Amino acid sequence: MPDFQAILENLYQDAMNTSDKGTVASYIPELAHVDKNNFGIHLRTSAGKDYGVGDYKKPFSIQSISKVLALSKAMELIGEDIWKRVDVEPSGHPFNQLALLEIENGIPRNPLINSGAIVIADILVSNLENPKEDFLNYIRDLNGDDTINFNIDVAHSEKVTGFKNYATANLLKSFENLNNPVDDVLDFYFHQCSIEMNCEQLTKAFFFLSNKGNCLSNKIRLTKTQAKRINAIILTCGFYDEAGEFAFEVGLPGKSGVGGGIVALLPDNFVVTTWSPGLNIKGNSLLGMKALEKFTTETKLSIF
Amino acid sequence: MPDFQAILENLYQDAMNTSDKGTVASYIPELAHVDKNNFGIHLRTSAGKDYGVGDYKKPFSIQSISKVLALSKAMELIGEDIWKRVDVEPSGHPFNQLALLEIENGIPRNPLINSGAIVIADILVSNLENPKEDFLNYIRDLNGDDTINFNIDVAHSEKVTGFKNYATANLLKSFENLNNPVDDVLDFYFHQCSIEMNCEQLTKAFFFLSNKGNCLSNKIRLTKTQAKRINAIILTCGFYDEAGEFAFEVGLPGKSGVGGGIVALLPDNFVVTTWSPGLNIKGNSLLGMKALEKFTTETKLSIF
Amino acid sequence: MPDFQAILENLYQDAMNTSDKGTVASYIPELAHVDKNNFGIHLRTSAGKDYGVGDYKKPFSIQSISKVLALSKAMELIGEDIWKRVDVEPSGHPFNQLALLEIENGIPRNPLINSGAIVIADILVSNLENPKEDFLNYIRDLNGDDTINFNIDVAHSEKVTGFKNYATANLLKSFENLNNPVDDVLDFYFHQCSIEMNCEQLTKAFFFLSNKGNCLSNKIRLTKTQAKRINAIILTCGFYDEAGEFAFEVGLPGKSGVGGGIVALLPDNFVVTTWSPGLNIKGNSLLGMKALEKFTTETKLSIF
Amino acid sequence: MPDFQAILENLYQDAMNTSDKGTVASYIPELAHVDKNNFGIHLRTSAGKDYGVGDYKKPFSIQSISKVLALSKAMELIGEDIWKRVDVEPSGHPFNQLALLEIENGIPRNPLINSGAIVIADILVSNLENPKEDFLNYIRDLNGDDTINFNIDVAHSEKVTGFKNYATANLLKSFENLNNPVDDVLDFYFHQCSIEMNCEQLTKAFFFLSNKGNCLSNKIRLTKTQAKRINAIILTCGFYDEAGEFAFEVGLPGKSGVGGGIVALLPDNFVVTTWSPGLNIKGNSLLGMKALEKFTTETKLSIF
Repeated sequence: MPDFQAILENLYQDAMNTSDKGTVASYIPELAHVDKNNFGIHLRTSAGKDYGVGDYKKPFSIQSISKVLALSKAMELIGEDIWKRVDVEPSGHPFNQLALLEIENGIPRNPLINSGAIVIADILVSNLENPKEDFLNYIRDLNGDDTINFNIDVAHSEKVTGFKNYATANLLKSFENLNNPVDDVLDFYFHQCSIEMNCEQLTKAFFFLSNKGNCLSNKIRLTKTQAKRINAIILTCGFYDEAGEFAFEVGLPGKSGVGGGIVALLPDNFVVTTWSPGLNIKGNSLLGMKALEKFTTETKLSIF
Repeated sequence: MPDFQAILENLYQDAMNTSDKGTVASYIPELAHVDKNNFGIHLRTSAGKDYGVGDYKKPFSIQSISKVLALSKAMELIGEDIWKRVDVEPSGHPFNQLALLEIENGIPRNPLINSGAIVIADILVSNLENPKEDFLNYIRDLNGDDTINFNIDVAHSEKVTGFKNYATANLLKSFENLNNPVDDVLDFYFHQCSIEMNCEQLTKAFFFLSNKGNCLSNKIRLTKTQAKRINAIILTCGFYDEAGEFAFEVGLPGKSGVGGGIVALLPDNFVVTTWSPGLNIKGNSLLGMKALEKFTTETKLSIF
Repeated sequence: MPDFQAILENLYQDAMNTSDKGTVASYIPELAHVDKNNFGIHLRTSAGKDYGVGDYKKPFSIQSISKVLALSKAMELIGEDIWKRVDVEPSGHPFNQLALLEIENGIPRNPLINSGAIVIADILVSNLENPKEDFLNYIRDLNGDDTINFNIDVAHSEKVTGFKNYATANLLKSFENLNNPVDDVLDFYFHQCSIEMNCEQLTKAFFFLSNKGNCLSNKIRLTKTQAKRINAIILTCGFYDEAGEFAFEVGLPGKSGVGGGIVALLPDNFVVTTWSPGLNIKGNSLLGMKALEKFTTETKLSIF
Repeated sequence: MPDFQAILENLYQDAMNTSDKGTVASYIPELAHVDKNNFGIHLRTSAGKDYGVGDYKKPFSIQSISKVLALSKAMELIGEDIWKRVDVEPSGHPFNQLALLEIENGIPRNPLINSGAIVIADILVSNLENPKEDFLNYIRDLNGDDTINFNIDVAHSEKVTGFKNYATANLLKSFENLNNPVDDVLDFYFHQCSIEMNCEQLTKAFFFLSNKGNCLSNKIRLTKTQAKRINAIILTCGFYDEAGEFAFEVGLPGKSGVGGGIVALLPDNFVVTTWSPGLNIKGNSLLGMKALEKFTTETKLSIF
């Protein structure tokens, strides 16, 4: 067993010593104002040991990381019926995101790109009684932590600037792959993405995916096969057009968000979360990726 | 000078005798219920002679034909500034309509495809005091006919089913190529397309494009160069992905609408309008195209 | 009737006074070494009057202009069967030239883009006894001038650097839209493009397209309808992704070549050829386009 | 430890009892004539235990499976310099294979699609003294088996029908991403793909990738990190546009070939090879995929 605390501290020092910290997302003011000197990392082993360094208790906007949790909830609710409406293939480069949806007749390439996540949001809106509250409670339950919440300002800012998401949702609607009104689905989607959590909370929330589907409180959330499949999707699709690069460099299923967070996991071993708000040119956390690359190189812990 | 009345009557007989009349557009009930046995044709020479056969006095939904008139009005209002926001190139095949817009950073390929027409609608919304009323009056003036009107039911039906147009407008907005709110622009756009006119009215309305920019009442609407340029755009872009085919077979600038109308013109010679509601597989009036092809073959009147 | 000689002289002076002469094609040494200060223009009316200014008697590489003549010859040989193997629609932007061919199952968009011209070359190789000699003789005949010839060095340079054309021909072959061996077809194609002519010779060679299909010696080359259709294709497809722009600015069917030549024509009126080796960013002669734009603006002679 | 022999025998029985065996590749006669009732499966654990059922000793054409071995050899020869010429991202759908290469300026998406494999072939041609012999010896060495050989007839058939590969290689050449002549590179490539091996031989050849880079004879072929990276590429890119599906259903890095073979592996655990010549609609072995899916479901052995 590696000395995780020492390794995490080294990664933190490396991050502190790196001058190029990437570029903070600037399309909404709430993200633009985050200090890019923040850096947190938190790891939890399957045996229940916790390790945290730096800003691992500061909450941040989880953004696209929420897509994995929304997918898990949708799988809990309707199971394999999801795959009638969304595929499981990597999406390739993003220059043609709507193009892809158009050519492929409204079936999103996977549930972790925006178009696919909007279909998942539509499923949740259809199948939850109080969609926003119920989804928030799902995450609180995964975590055993009732302080987790939406950031209403972030949700509102996404709403008034998210024209590309409106374009996507309307295109899905034109292909009859959206059952609820566009505004309802996107209201849910923007709230889902606005949830704020810290590294430790994310590590705990994702525990069930490293633990055959059973969450921290031992409740069965997914079958073992379902957990395995979500991990496969995370690996092949979790980093947009850098999914191959992340698999190649890091070798773990991992999901990033534009708020600077990354959650990665090794089944039956650990979950690890990094937070560094500066992004690389592809929109993934620059120092988070570097830290995870070093982590798997040093520990020799990867799925490959 | 050919015997236009005899030729038009022959074309009408040919159409009556053709069993395959194409398929009436069915995406909104108001268009779906039109009888596809309607066939009208009307021609007016530069010298002012009128010829009409069949249902040339029955009004129909002009739909995309309105895009030429909207473009003309926009050119009257802001001149060459239009071309900062929309290009003048043919669009090619439609399987990738949004794709194209995405790859080309929100600059529509030309003002006669939907994305370009929505930009033109945005220009009119910005530059007309009462956009809908003023545009309707523009068409009434071109024609000297105050009975022309919107079909509110058609406009409403487009609104509740036009998800692809909402997708397009939101994508334009995401590229900052729409100055007004999406709903305002599309409200105008759906009304513009819902205008009802008959063959004779359309022939008269388009007269200024065959007459160096001067309309029926002799009012100067466009400069000679502007009229020439709009005719060039009509020729290269007026039939979606069948623009080349129409130029090849017919050899006139022409614009079709999904309501089954086609207006074509030979500068300094004539304007001709056909109406036959059945469409071919590309969405252009099947018998209208055939009639115009025979017309130019028999009369040897074309721009080439 | 405008004073063509005076107008042409003005255009020549304008060209001489323009400092930005564009960029000479540099992908083969034979083109790269041409002096970009050359400027020639030649016009011939249907009535047989000739007007020439500047370097209108200096031969240059006609390159893609040859595609129109190859198409005309193919139409003479096999008529409408051409359209089973190539379409007549504008191609749109060139960033996806092979893409287009791939998506559209090996049917080139039109006979004036490279893929389409290679199919036409294949037709000529199949239907001419001695393809290269016969095609050269066809052009000599159109012109009544036996001095016209291939530039063997140019043909050879194209051959050793033309990997994209080899890619295209092999892709056509994979779709079974090439009947002869790739090497045979491209050998013909590279020779066809290497032909050298001057402005006056090109004007004369294209005369039949402005004259209902009858060439200078009054021999019938094409039917009136065939000539009209080729003119339609030239207009919609003759300038690659600037076809719309050329129609919009100039308003004549016109074909450019990377050697700096442009031939344009007004049916029943005139043929005009410009030569200026510097190209704009889209690969069309910069000063040639400007001269033709001024020409149609001043003379008010256009098809629109 | 599961009872591998029993499990493999069950998989064999399932395959025998399945009536839909897919479609044998028919583009060359040598593949078209293979009997689709063949089914072999062979597994070897890291501890050195062997299990084989059915036709696991019958040789078949390894085709694209060779791409992994070519990549491994190239990595041995020039290391990370490979990534200057080819990327590591999944390619998405194949309808636009050349398109992708064109848009991305001649840099193939990954080394396991044809365009990328042709670049790897070019690297081997440049860096091996006797490319074909040396590469064959590399595979023989991995295996400790000198009977492995090319099938010259297969290589020849690929050569005379492989127009799409010629198109690809010429397109690469046009982007200057091919250093050797197209014919030399493709001659090597077609031979590489024509190699014949049986399930047992493939299992043994791939052993080093499951064993931190050390092959059967304990020779170090790659570093541990290099082996891990190749496994990551196999997982994200090994099944063309079904890579996500294979990760999702099977959960192992795996590579298929059009000859009906699939090799998959769990690092530090086992390598398993299936052979069933009938392909599904995406070109991957139908019964091979099903067998591997059942295998990982029953044994619970996967990377996720």
